[in-house]
Amino acid sequence: MEILRKPEEMTAWSKRAAREGKTIGFVPTMGALHEGHMSLIRRARKENDVVVVSIFVNPTQFGPGEDYDRYPRCFEKDAKMCEAERVDAVFHPAAEDMYPEDHRTFVEVCELSNRLCGISRPGHFRGVTTVVAKLFGIVRPDRAYFGMKDAQQLVIIERMNRDLCMGVQIVRCETVREPDGLAMSSRNTYLSAAERKQALAISRALKECEARFDAGERKTMPLLKVMGDILAREPDIEVDYIAVADPITLDDISTIENEALAAIAVYIGKTRLIDNVTLRPKKG
Amino acid sequence: MEILRKPEEMTAWSKRAAREGKTIGFVPTMGALHEGHMSLIRRARKENDVVVVSIFVNPTQFGPGEDYDRYPRCFEKDAKMCEAERVDAVFHPAAEDMYPEDHRTFVEVCELSNRLCGISRPGHFRGVTTVVAKLFGIVRPDRAYFGMKDAQQLVIIERMNRDLCMGVQIVRCETVREPDGLAMSSRNTYLSAAERKQALAISRALKECEARFDAGERKTMPLLKVMGDILAREPDIEVDYIAVADPITLDDISTIENEALAAIAVYIGKTRLIDNVTLRPKKG
Repeated sequence: MEILRKPEEMTAWSKRAAREGKTIGFVPTMGALHEGHMSLIRRARKENDVVVVSIFVNPTQFGPGEDYDRYPRCFEKDAKMCEAERVDAVFHPAAEDMYPEDHRTFVEVCELSNRLCGISRPGHFRGVTTVVAKLFGIVRPDRAYFGMKDAQQLVIIERMNRDLCMGVQIVRCETVREPDGLAMSSRNTYLSAAERKQALAISRALKECEARFDAGERKTMPLLKVMGDILAREPDIEVDYIAVADPITLDDISTIENEALAAIAVYIGKTRLIDNVTLRPKKG
Repeated sequence: MEILRKPEEMTAWSKRAAREGKTIGFVPTMGALHEGHMSLIRRARKENDVVVVSIFVNPTQFGPGEDYDRYPRCFEKDAKMCEAERVDAVFHPAAEDMYPEDHRTFVEVCELSNRLCGISRPGHFRGVTTVVAKLFGIVRPDRAYFGMKDAQQLVIIERMNRDLCMGVQIVRCETVREPDGLAMSSRNTYLSAAERKQALAISRALKECEARFDAGERKTMPLLKVMGDILAREPDIEVDYIAVADPITLDDISTIENEALAAIAVYIGKTRLIDNVTLRPKKG
């Protein structure tokens, strides 16, 4: 497995692979890898000739006062995990190589970036789309793998990829959960034991929402209420938002015509956690 | 010569060329081709295996009240001119294929886009960078050719290309002028005979600025004054800006250390014209 730190080395590596006719599967991460990342890597491994994982804690997607400085960094461990999954190349650039002092270009997906998480994290998705555009330029993948846990991010990246004609196949991957239901996240390591227990209310609320939907509920008001009630029982949970939204426009909806995205963001202490389920009619 | 109207057809064409190991030279234009464009095409022809010219009047780079509707369109004539220069493919998309209704992504180069022309044309360069990013995604060129007449545009596109790691070689090409000095522009066709004559003051002013620089003047104030005086003699010229700026940051400067960009934008009647020269010390 190669570890590449300079963007130009990464591009040269990818160009070589492309010249040899190999397809490139790409998993962009901020490191602190967990089973969620591993599931993306395994899928990329299955579907491509070579697999590239980027490990880069992207400063432009963190707001002032957010957890950029304390975001978990454990490159040695991450690299070992990549190697064990037969990753071909890990791209691990320095922040100053990704953002030289005179870096001035930003990519923004309007409207979609100002909903849900975009409200409490202004500029966050602009940082995400900018770094993903850069990474796509550097790595030049055929396919890129993103987890559904970050559903809004995924919708925004799909739109960017289409609008800017980037030609990458964006692959949506299911959220991976702990046995008790908590969605895997690098930020789960921030939680105390007591917080960890309360955090289960998030997936419980989404599960209950899904059960009501499956039982026929199509009005969003009762779905929002049931989720709110479950979260309200936890003393240390502060709700950022609870939403049932159109899965493409991310607009709030009052009645579910076909599919919808049920999404939750909360603060538990200083830790911000998100999770979601897609509500879709069962077939048959 | 192929004429391609759908973005996906253009991309398929370019992918085929790349698979055959051919280098792709790209000249993005808004049509109404003149000798300036032809010089870009000829250079692309010389330096690449295949040449693609795009002809697309890009709506997002025109502000409200600007000349989007009346911008000259003469596709048949343009296509013939391309064919005569042995262009391999002309990309001529419909606006609705470039900007479907749910298009939401924009590329912006901060700071550089808010100087010079960016002041009187807010949003203009955001439209330019967005469409060039899209065209680069669609055409996938090895090299792209831009004229120095649009000096600010060129600086901004170079920065975007570097910042987003697009990997295109941006080729700067000298401004082509009419025998009397007027910089070639599709907008010159808007001018009446009387306006056309007054417009010569622009290149005359820049030439005089250059002569003073060559004679040793390094303070910008006297250079600005000499240009202003020449333009002020023309009754129908309204100055938008006269600037001597750093060629990389586009900041106004008071003393020229090495090189500088002397740039002028004026309105003559309803027509906005721009021109510039690079002031650089003569070698030897």
